[in-house]
Amino acid sequence: MFFTSDNASGAAPEILAAVAAADPSYTGAYGGDQVTERAVARVREVFEAPEAAVYFVATGTAANALALATLCPPWGAVYCHRISHVEVDECGAPEFFTGGAKLTLLDGDHAKLQTASLEEAARMAAPVGVHNVQRGAVSITQATELGAVYTLAEIEELCAIARAYDMPVHMDGTRLANALARSNHSAAEMTWRAGVDILCLGATKNGALAAEAVVIFDPARAWEFELRRKRGGHLFSKMRFVSAQIEAFLTDGLWLGLAGHANAMADRLAAGMAGIKGAEVTNSVEANMLFATITCGQHRRLQEAGARYYPMNPTQDEAGAEDAPLDIRLVTSFRTEPGDVDRFLEVLAG
Amino acid sequence: MFFTSDNASGAAPEILAAVAAADPSYTGAYGGDQVTERAVARVREVFEAPEAAVYFVATGTAANALALATLCPPWGAVYCHRISHVEVDECGAPEFFTGGAKLTLLDGDHAKLQTASLEEAARMAAPVGVHNVQRGAVSITQATELGAVYTLAEIEELCAIARAYDMPVHMDGTRLANALARSNHSAAEMTWRAGVDILCLGATKNGALAAEAVVIFDPARAWEFELRRKRGGHLFSKMRFVSAQIEAFLTDGLWLGLAGHANAMADRLAAGMAGIKGAEVTNSVEANMLFATITCGQHRRLQEAGARYYPMNPTQDEAGAEDAPLDIRLVTSFRTEPGDVDRFLEVLAG
Amino acid sequence: MFFTSDNASGAAPEILAAVAAADPSYTGAYGGDQVTERAVARVREVFEAPEAAVYFVATGTAANALALATLCPPWGAVYCHRISHVEVDECGAPEFFTGGAKLTLLDGDHAKLQTASLEEAARMAAPVGVHNVQRGAVSITQATELGAVYTLAEIEELCAIARAYDMPVHMDGTRLANALARSNHSAAEMTWRAGVDILCLGATKNGALAAEAVVIFDPARAWEFELRRKRGGHLFSKMRFVSAQIEAFLTDGLWLGLAGHANAMADRLAAGMAGIKGAEVTNSVEANMLFATITCGQHRRLQEAGARYYPMNPTQDEAGAEDAPLDIRLVTSFRTEPGDVDRFLEVLAG
Amino acid sequence: MFFTSDNASGAAPEILAAVAAADPSYTGAYGGDQVTERAVARVREVFEAPEAAVYFVATGTAANALALATLCPPWGAVYCHRISHVEVDECGAPEFFTGGAKLTLLDGDHAKLQTASLEEAARMAAPVGVHNVQRGAVSITQATELGAVYTLAEIEELCAIARAYDMPVHMDGTRLANALARSNHSAAEMTWRAGVDILCLGATKNGALAAEAVVIFDPARAWEFELRRKRGGHLFSKMRFVSAQIEAFLTDGLWLGLAGHANAMADRLAAGMAGIKGAEVTNSVEANMLFATITCGQHRRLQEAGARYYPMNPTQDEAGAEDAPLDIRLVTSFRTEPGDVDRFLEVLAG
Repeated sequence: MFFTSDNASGAAPEILAAVAAADPSYTGAYGGDQVTERAVARVREVFEAPEAAVYFVATGTAANALALATLCPPWGAVYCHRISHVEVDECGAPEFFTGGAKLTLLDGDHAKLQTASLEEAARMAAPVGVHNVQRGAVSITQATELGAVYTLAEIEELCAIARAYDMPVHMDGTRLANALARSNHSAAEMTWRAGVDILCLGATKNGALAAEAVVIFDPARAWEFELRRKRGGHLFSKMRFVSAQIEAFLTDGLWLGLAGHANAMADRLAAGMAGIKGAEVTNSVEANMLFATITCGQHRRLQEAGARYYPMNPTQDEAGAEDAPLDIRLVTSFRTEPGDVDRFLEVLAG
Repeated sequence: MFFTSDNASGAAPEILAAVAAADPSYTGAYGGDQVTERAVARVREVFEAPEAAVYFVATGTAANALALATLCPPWGAVYCHRISHVEVDECGAPEFFTGGAKLTLLDGDHAKLQTASLEEAARMAAPVGVHNVQRGAVSITQATELGAVYTLAEIEELCAIARAYDMPVHMDGTRLANALARSNHSAAEMTWRAGVDILCLGATKNGALAAEAVVIFDPARAWEFELRRKRGGHLFSKMRFVSAQIEAFLTDGLWLGLAGHANAMADRLAAGMAGIKGAEVTNSVEANMLFATITCGQHRRLQEAGARYYPMNPTQDEAGAEDAPLDIRLVTSFRTEPGDVDRFLEVLAG
Repeated sequence: MFFTSDNASGAAPEILAAVAAADPSYTGAYGGDQVTERAVARVREVFEAPEAAVYFVATGTAANALALATLCPPWGAVYCHRISHVEVDECGAPEFFTGGAKLTLLDGDHAKLQTASLEEAARMAAPVGVHNVQRGAVSITQATELGAVYTLAEIEELCAIARAYDMPVHMDGTRLANALARSNHSAAEMTWRAGVDILCLGATKNGALAAEAVVIFDPARAWEFELRRKRGGHLFSKMRFVSAQIEAFLTDGLWLGLAGHANAMADRLAAGMAGIKGAEVTNSVEANMLFATITCGQHRRLQEAGARYYPMNPTQDEAGAEDAPLDIRLVTSFRTEPGDVDRFLEVLAG
Repeated sequence: MFFTSDNASGAAPEILAAVAAADPSYTGAYGGDQVTERAVARVREVFEAPEAAVYFVATGTAANALALATLCPPWGAVYCHRISHVEVDECGAPEFFTGGAKLTLLDGDHAKLQTASLEEAARMAAPVGVHNVQRGAVSITQATELGAVYTLAEIEELCAIARAYDMPVHMDGTRLANALARSNHSAAEMTWRAGVDILCLGATKNGALAAEAVVIFDPARAWEFELRRKRGGHLFSKMRFVSAQIEAFLTDGLWLGLAGHANAMADRLAAGMAGIKGAEVTNSVEANMLFATITCGQHRRLQEAGARYYPMNPTQDEAGAEDAPLDIRLVTSFRTEPGDVDRFLEVLAG
């Protein structure tokens, strides 16, 4: 009953197998190998972007920080959500890689940027010229850190505002697969056709060992990215072992299948909780994350039974009264088993 | 007949197997897992350093740059060899991670730092106080970029000078296994007992997919390193897949066995070339690298036969006269087969 | 009728004279001169801090950014007010000098940090350890960017919280003289005795040409500061010309006299506006800044008469209806003449 | 008898007067004033560069580091002389401002870059692509740190090589006036017409209090420079006090007059030393610096008589035998008096 995070879920068998198969003795180093060539081609095909520059790194933080550094100068502002991963969970990696750019935080329900507040922020930027940080880039996360999925129209509108103010758009697509698995839009529609400039496509949380693809839709920025990647220590000599993960991930729709399963498990949790007294799902479950309020009593039963997940509200005491509320987060993954969900619900119901 | 670099050699079966075995479903993320715990314990055991802080990253550049940033302030000088990897092959990663420290280049045969020139440089540092970059750290590579192995006495002397001038010592141990396999010294003797403060222990070039261990013998520096690692995007969520490589690497002497094989293949090459007209080995083969002069005619025959290696002298023309000299580098690995060596020698002999 | 900013007010005659007098031919460079020696002694005396390390730079941005870099590591958060100068008006200088620290913005009336929100922020910092930016430093501005003066008790409380969470305190004292001229506390009481670690004492806005003193009450941080200053290009070879300004500034209470005059002119403005229809002072005038609402009609009359000041609300149109409100800021200085204030009031009254 | 450095020489009366005259009460801040406007126009006129972007800062280190950061990306190499000021005397400011670029050191007599070695270095740069630091910029100093003056042809040739390898050229013109005063070339010929992209024109060492002009001949780089200057804390609110120095400096040939006097004083020293036993001038005196070998005995007599200058060779002992050689540097300035020179020679002659 592990619902802490999808980043603790291990590797999908197809991906592990691809890694093992990627080792037929000597080949070119640093990406000059056939596995990497095929993986790049696969990304371009899946995203219908034959000109895109495609690079592989091994952590989401590296992907995001390198992408932002490529898009935003040191004196620029990165407009992002107050609880976005780039702001909250990367120990300042964007500041480090950009050379000290400023993350300008915007609010918005469900961890989504709002068009109105982005437009306001962009309009008000640098009122006294050189004294202020300048407009830099816009960063959005799909699906968001609160498990919501931007609609296509929302992305298009945000990108239009960014464009109007001459700012490129970064998409943190750590859980893009989860978003796509929910929607009826293609990968291309959800990204570059909507106006995204650089996509960080996550695989690690969705079945890979450690692999993320950075897709630069405008290849003019590619060489700078390559230099930043090397300089950041993120260029792998035996690249094929990373590339193989991405290739497998995007083959035969594996990524969407894995994400779809995770989403379905979140739905199953939500459906089950609907009927349980004391428990209430507080978000619209759009990806593989579920936020809920349960009671401290239920929490303690779940802990004893071995369930693992995170409380979300530091002002609530896990040792509170039996019926005191406790806000929790549950994350499912490609690996979550229906039986685990059902057992969780059973314990929760008491 | 691949002798370009050991970094193109694929993965050792034992290490691939360990990666596959590291995936028994959910576990703690970011290193909070049992594989990592065991791998850390293994490093400490092998280096007889029970207090050492041990961290895993996936590239040698990351290991080196993070280590140097932990040792040297932005206004410090890193004393290193003119052709050291940190200077030549990392696109300025040390400058990036340190926040702009200065690599001060020293000469020395076989890519070894010389005690006299290090002492001179340290003594002359910062003659006008705040106007100059200050003494920062010393960086040595074992085995060196020219395939030489520092003797224990040489390391001890360099560390003593560093200590006398209050500078910590970084060892780039990308090929430490090759050095140890040649010597009769223990891992502890060759590192912390000799005065090394941080070791970057390479596994990638010697059979791992992508794994390096950073061993911080003085744990006072550990927390800063952890923050730098995270901030650099080098903290893996599914750490076990990196840790498993190191664990296997250090189990039952695998690392020394793999390196010993690579060394033996270099010896076999050297022995064979000794009797071939037109070919001359120009270094003392102490690790798994061999530098030689052959003729352009021999070179063209080898290329046609499919041999792969790098010419080293940009002023020489590969298309030169049949008996014009050409300087080349040959690197062997855990994967080099005796048959490949013999075939190379056969073609070379003509 | 210049009320744009005190930073446009020219130089006090005593300070200009001191600069001219500082030039008796050759002397030691880089601060090794008698003027600098005397100026340092004067700062120590005025602040009753005989051990303090004292350095002179020429801009407030340099002083603040160098001080913050000395106090806060690259992975730290600087807690400051949302509209503080370090956040809003330095084009990211703190991020640049710290190597990418994160300015964490807090709200509070009158641009003052509130003890409750600082305590909350400090308590909530880095909930998931290495993934988050760590507690770094606290920055307060005295007087604030909205012309308010922290009481001694407020400073002491903020410093106590900072101390409790192991964070040093930076005071941006660009207008410290204005604050002191209002209070009955000594310079020492308002700074180090209250818990401030580094003070950036402004002189430029209060009569100097270009001079700020950085007072490091704990000299353990001094050498690092010196290196950062040099490396930042802020060490002057002919230091005496900067030092002379500070010496004169602090001699015979000149600084408090100049600031007291500026404060009195702000009072005179406020008193005069109290009786004028359509005009309303919206802040409690505690230093030399006055915020007011006037009508667009009044504004246009003032502009025509040559008055200079800044509107503050970008959503208001200066070309609005005759009685439409317009929020403005008026800043007085050592150089503001009573006649100018009276003329301003006369035009405002219509 | 001060011959330590021209940076300790105080201010020229014309420049001090201009500073005092720059204070007619309120004006625009941050360079929006008439003095700055006139000073910019003066620079453009003197350099026959009506399109040039011109900025003023207060230290040579700031000028150089900001200029290099504007020209060279973080992953670039700055080719400069081994003993250039940017390498030796700025505590790593170029590394800091560029975000970690690498200063690649070249040798050459008289601290001049040699065309052959520059060409060789540029040609050999980045042999393995992304793994190496890339070609960035070329930096030359006129007059050099050893008091030599590049001929126009030398500058043109170096710039041509830079251009051929797509690198912009930075000129550290701390002592450009001294070089021009020796030559029969115009300021334009010696800089942008020869191929220089950014000139850092020094005034501080030649009579200013603290003022340097950065002249960007290609204004496309101007806005980035402005942001870097602000972010570096080098934008002055009361800019007029810096601008006034530059305006006076360039008015009626003051700068060349001051430099010419300094040069003449160096000549007088050299001429006088020619006839003194035990003393030998070791450089060709082309600017205001003289390098000589004297005896330790002479040195001690000079010290006792109050002469001030720097020994240059750390392996020589000032307390050596009476006739032991001692290498020294003598720097003259606008302020050096003939009587001081003559007295120095008298004591030297014994």
